[in-house]
Amino acid sequence: MARVKAKVDALILEHLLPTVSPIKEIALLYEMMRDYPERPAKGLRSLFCVTTCKALGGSEDDALLTAACIEILQNWILIHDDIEDGSELRRGRPALHRKYGELLAMNAGDALHARMWGVLLQNKDRLGADTALQVMEEFARIVNETTEGQHMELAWVVGRRWDLDESDYLAMVSRKTAWYSVAGPCRLGGLIAGAPAAELDRLREFGLKLGVGFQIQDDTLNLVGESSRYGKQKADDIREGKRSLILLKALKEAGHEDAARVTAIMQRTRQEKTDNDVNRVLALMKHCGAIAYAQHTAQQFLADALAVLDTIRWSGDAAAVQLLHDVARFSIERQW
Amino acid sequence: MARVKAKVDALILEHLLPTVSPIKEIALLYEMMRDYPERPAKGLRSLFCVTTCKALGGSEDDALLTAACIEILQNWILIHDDIEDGSELRRGRPALHRKYGELLAMNAGDALHARMWGVLLQNKDRLGADTALQVMEEFARIVNETTEGQHMELAWVVGRRWDLDESDYLAMVSRKTAWYSVAGPCRLGGLIAGAPAAELDRLREFGLKLGVGFQIQDDTLNLVGESSRYGKQKADDIREGKRSLILLKALKEAGHEDAARVTAIMQRTRQEKTDNDVNRVLALMKHCGAIAYAQHTAQQFLADALAVLDTIRWSGDAAAVQLLHDVARFSIERQW
Repeated sequence: MARVKAKVDALILEHLLPTVSPIKEIALLYEMMRDYPERPAKGLRSLFCVTTCKALGGSEDDALLTAACIEILQNWILIHDDIEDGSELRRGRPALHRKYGELLAMNAGDALHARMWGVLLQNKDRLGADTALQVMEEFARIVNETTEGQHMELAWVVGRRWDLDESDYLAMVSRKTAWYSVAGPCRLGGLIAGAPAAELDRLREFGLKLGVGFQIQDDTLNLVGESSRYGKQKADDIREGKRSLILLKALKEAGHEDAARVTAIMQRTRQEKTDNDVNRVLALMKHCGAIAYAQHTAQQFLADALAVLDTIRWSGDAAAVQLLHDVARFSIERQW
Repeated sequence: MARVKAKVDALILEHLLPTVSPIKEIALLYEMMRDYPERPAKGLRSLFCVTTCKALGGSEDDALLTAACIEILQNWILIHDDIEDGSELRRGRPALHRKYGELLAMNAGDALHARMWGVLLQNKDRLGADTALQVMEEFARIVNETTEGQHMELAWVVGRRWDLDESDYLAMVSRKTAWYSVAGPCRLGGLIAGAPAAELDRLREFGLKLGVGFQIQDDTLNLVGESSRYGKQKADDIREGKRSLILLKALKEAGHEDAARVTAIMQRTRQEKTDNDVNRVLALMKHCGAIAYAQHTAQQFLADALAVLDTIRWSGDAAAVQLLHDVARFSIERQW
């Protein structure tokens, strides 16, 4: 795992992102584009891509450039998400817009987005024009899904919507997170390995299950995990006003008065929320079993994902198949 | 001209942008992605692409999809620029973020950006994989240049920089505007027509000259044009605090006291600036000859651009060559 991550990081930082410009303003832009990629991260998404490729008979080297683009994708999305969500921290350090302001950060996200497509074009030299184009088609789909999911969540924020069902949540999170975190990376690995369409369909199913479970787990860690290892403020999702599965479940299970009280707190801005507010919401989430419910649901999604994984006809490296199972398990069982 | 524009508009609105979704939040996202493209616009950029293609022996139909993507490019850039510049109006109507808020508008810009790349992949069917990839390489370069130029200008705003030379302005505007407005569109037309590298180099030179002239002319129209036809608030650039060539020239020509007074006004936010403030800056710009200087400079860039155009070995439709000259002239001589 660590070896693939080191290769992908080196590729991104030493070859794919720009470094120097004689114009000092532009040198600052390059520094901003490199900022998130230089921060420590798990690199799970690129690992899904490379490992799936190997498990389906493809070579690691064929998948590295695409894996690097998955990390670049993740980073430009985070730059824009952090602005849109008003996040303070990212990977334990100030969010990019907190360091440089929203205007420059927004544009740096655009620059990194375009750079991702520019890098994807280089796939032509190793994979040939047709596969390079197929890989880009998958990226186009991934970004479509991600922006649709992001729009759904933002529309709820702007519309002050709290009357949401679990099905609304699942429709949002499968688009916003599961596609670019797991379904897309795995399908890209399969594509590069030359896997047939039926296997790519199963990889999508696996990825959506695992990706949704991954996000639900992420949301529970935000509330009860160790913030120093996790790299965000503790219970930052409550401060942010996030419609997590946990919150929606708590609103549903709580009595009318408690629900109204929690909604009123959640509706406050980050600045307006006191620590006491946050602790009251957290206490209700625990008390009504919403956190335990979310943890259980995440495990259910993991089990479903692993079951799909077992239906895939692997044609490659057995160690990679095993690693894929392990990474899937880790991504939901991790405690940070 | 109008015929090409009608074809490109129909392609974008009827075939390339999404329309319906069963999820009502996502239907709103699609409406937002279609909002700017549905507003009346001149379509000069797509015309440069199609006309250059024909003038170099290519077919109009081969260039239409790429021309549509140039318009999509222009629209997602405008969505983000309008947020970053705090613009109120776009094409005579409220800017997208004034209608829907910054969060949703920013994400809709990302969605439209990704859609552009998704559409560009369709070039494969008509132009073949290799040309489709070359077209995308040109787009990657165009967006790189544009985001670098945008970063330069924003960095001046954030850094409260007013001590800028004409050479700083030209370095910024050639990246921010000239590439995506003229150099890129013309080169794309040439690429599709199969023009040799030497001609593509000349098209870049033509495009940079004309694009810079175009922007300088645009900035003079913002100050002295008819706002009802132009679609922006009169002298909006002064309210925005824009470092236009006109302003930089005025600061240089004015005495120390006048320059300090103008800088102090320009540094105020849009809300803080009174009509009287705006009129004082405008009066100084006129009085010290900065507007006349900019108009003269724009004409000089036009003359240089036309001279480059005459060195290109045209191999196609003579009417298209003539149209290119006419459009070049119009884009700088226009009064709105």
